[in-house]
Amino acid sequence: MITEQLVKNIANTKYDDIPESVILHAKKSLLNWVGVTIGAINHETTNILMEVTDDISSERHATILGRNQKKDLLSAVLINGTSSHIFDFDDTHLETIHHPSAPVAPVIFALGEKYNIPPKELLRAFILGCEAELRISNAVYPSHYQLGYHITSSTGAFGAAVAAGVILKLNDEQMAMSLGLAGTQSFGLREMFGTMTKPFHPGKAAQNGLLAALLVEKGFTSSTQVLEAKRGFANVYSPSHELDKVLVDWGKVWELEKNAFKPYACGIVLHPSIDACIQLSEFATPEEVKEITLEVHPYVLELTAKETPKTGLEGKFSIYHTAAIAFLEKDASEDQYQNEKVNDPKTLDLRQKIKPVSNDQIDKDKVLATLIKQDGSEHEVYIEHATGSFRNQMTQQMLNKKFAKLSTNTLDKKQTEQVIEKILEFDQLESIHQVIELI
Amino acid sequence: MITEQLVKNIANTKYDDIPESVILHAKKSLLNWVGVTIGAINHETTNILMEVTDDISSERHATILGRNQKKDLLSAVLINGTSSHIFDFDDTHLETIHHPSAPVAPVIFALGEKYNIPPKELLRAFILGCEAELRISNAVYPSHYQLGYHITSSTGAFGAAVAAGVILKLNDEQMAMSLGLAGTQSFGLREMFGTMTKPFHPGKAAQNGLLAALLVEKGFTSSTQVLEAKRGFANVYSPSHELDKVLVDWGKVWELEKNAFKPYACGIVLHPSIDACIQLSEFATPEEVKEITLEVHPYVLELTAKETPKTGLEGKFSIYHTAAIAFLEKDASEDQYQNEKVNDPKTLDLRQKIKPVSNDQIDKDKVLATLIKQDGSEHEVYIEHATGSFRNQMTQQMLNKKFAKLSTNTLDKKQTEQVIEKILEFDQLESIHQVIELI
Repeated sequence: MITEQLVKNIANTKYDDIPESVILHAKKSLLNWVGVTIGAINHETTNILMEVTDDISSERHATILGRNQKKDLLSAVLINGTSSHIFDFDDTHLETIHHPSAPVAPVIFALGEKYNIPPKELLRAFILGCEAELRISNAVYPSHYQLGYHITSSTGAFGAAVAAGVILKLNDEQMAMSLGLAGTQSFGLREMFGTMTKPFHPGKAAQNGLLAALLVEKGFTSSTQVLEAKRGFANVYSPSHELDKVLVDWGKVWELEKNAFKPYACGIVLHPSIDACIQLSEFATPEEVKEITLEVHPYVLELTAKETPKTGLEGKFSIYHTAAIAFLEKDASEDQYQNEKVNDPKTLDLRQKIKPVSNDQIDKDKVLATLIKQDGSEHEVYIEHATGSFRNQMTQQMLNKKFAKLSTNTLDKKQTEQVIEKILEFDQLESIHQVIELI
Repeated sequence: MITEQLVKNIANTKYDDIPESVILHAKKSLLNWVGVTIGAINHETTNILMEVTDDISSERHATILGRNQKKDLLSAVLINGTSSHIFDFDDTHLETIHHPSAPVAPVIFALGEKYNIPPKELLRAFILGCEAELRISNAVYPSHYQLGYHITSSTGAFGAAVAAGVILKLNDEQMAMSLGLAGTQSFGLREMFGTMTKPFHPGKAAQNGLLAALLVEKGFTSSTQVLEAKRGFANVYSPSHELDKVLVDWGKVWELEKNAFKPYACGIVLHPSIDACIQLSEFATPEEVKEITLEVHPYVLELTAKETPKTGLEGKFSIYHTAAIAFLEKDASEDQYQNEKVNDPKTLDLRQKIKPVSNDQIDKDKVLATLIKQDGSEHEVYIEHATGSFRNQMTQQMLNKKFAKLSTNTLDKKQTEQVIEKILEFDQLESIHQVIELI
């Protein structure tokens, strides 16, 4: 374990263990560093950073949704973007497993509030931000994702930069540079899944993209060809890619329309299995189950093969826990991912009977599930399109119900109805404050 | 040009061009997004972000060196880290072309000032931060760099996180998680070279690493095996790597000692050519020059082949401008990279006579230069180790002189001497305020 040993080496290296010559070289390094730093302190680059950080961090311009508190712009988008991805319950562009709203929506709320931008303009900015990030995701998926990038953050910063750029009315060159400055900050490792760092990713992507547009607005320079350059985004971040997909059928095909809403509070790849286990629970009590086999797309096991989750968060990355709890409780909302549920002996018992099998003939929104009972009898369920998938979308009523459940600790019934109504007539609102004040 | 066309598409898509169905889907997306965001608003993840952003952004704790102004912690490290890399005049670990101080030093100054940490502890944090980032760079260089990453930012965030973690006295698990949270934010495309975004990279890396340590200190979770994990830093960011280099000879070989200081205000790869052109200028007037050939390591042309730079900044990435101006003015400091100098007819004339040739038999700190005069006579100069390289290091006196030149607009002569003295006895100072107050 390299990381672990590096950490031990660091901890064990006391000051007196460091040779004199190294200490002297460190001081020389600091002297040289201070020199070059103060030498450039009145450079245009520094002036822009001074101005922008003053603008954005000096005042509390943007509301933390649901908290009745304000923060500076960059902190607000970081927090709202992170919150929205904590439950893994946000929207998903199924073809790329990209969650489009999380990096983009915080930007339109924060800038909209600060500058009191008409909601119709914000809606356009949101749509264009989502289109840009999803099309860039199309261009690099699946190679980029398979390599190990959390695509929601790695291309999400482009979406945030576009939304911010539209709102700030950047000209074409500035917009291209915003994409450059956002794209060079692209980041996010799938290794972080199952920790707080996963939801942090889209929040940080929102922050990076917003910062890019704010800096470019004041004169910061960057590359204008970040996507296609030899050492630009596509070549560096994705072993293979088809950049034409960024532009193809623009204005005819809208990627945002392929955005699906989740009925369950975990990664979309588990949804067919949840549907299946809820259906199978009609045929047996937990005690009668001998085994449940789930034939799934190979991605499912790549993402959710945690056999012994210990926390609710880890439970979201465990097909074993998820299938068991869906069978037991006929749902997979936040309630089913509480730590106690993950460690409940009843769940532990059933999850040992869950047998996932990787099958590359099965699409991502499908599952072939077989229940084998103790008495030897079998029941098979085939889910062709999971609830919430593109061909089996959640209705407006289901969405409203989901919203009401999520807002139960924050809004009363009347407020909930009002928020739903205001967002559904977003483009006719006079001011975004009409929504923000309610939340 | 994909980026350019994407920008045009965005600009040309007016609200009325967007189909009703897309607008409805956007509203549903926003409704769903607001729901999941407020649903998680009291989650531990959000609570930590609320607390840390309050801590760091509410007050102006850290000085912008050379400006006599304070900013919040994160803005201060961004700005000081960026300033230090603007002139491309900071230190360089020659084996990896990594500039170690820029992402690490801002962190020890900012945290040291806020918490009044004893300078000896800060020096240890600085040394360990540099060791960590440079060893990680060793492990991924050259593959990672060749792919297109600006290694100073992409591994620099690790150095910033280590320095911050040492100062904040994180335990081993926390330190590993800080490396995780820093490593997942790793970023930086070489495509940005020649724009303001290049110096922004180490500043942002310092900010990302500091934020990682601050969040983990308050309980944020992340992976503890970011370096070696299947979808961790090395596998995702570097086509090939040797992770053993992170640990080998720890405490025996100190990478920081290989850190070199630049006598010239441009990328280190140009320094042998500058030395050579200064020497060749003894043998001819500019008018007498017919051609100067420079046989250089292939990296030199990969990084500095800009034939027609228009600005001083672009001039730093042009072997043509740099060689010409070194011949004309016998130096390559900031003065030689002013916009006027780059566009001066005298420079333009001479730079057309510069003929660089890639030769993989020539090491990075060497050059074989040949001056051919109009009269047909030739002069050859072979630079074996450029000034400032590991085998031909700048003396303390040269360093002091460089510092004095850089601080000339900020400090008077007496202050300059005092700063040099204080930094060279950094470990014996009672408080870092003794240095900061002077700058």
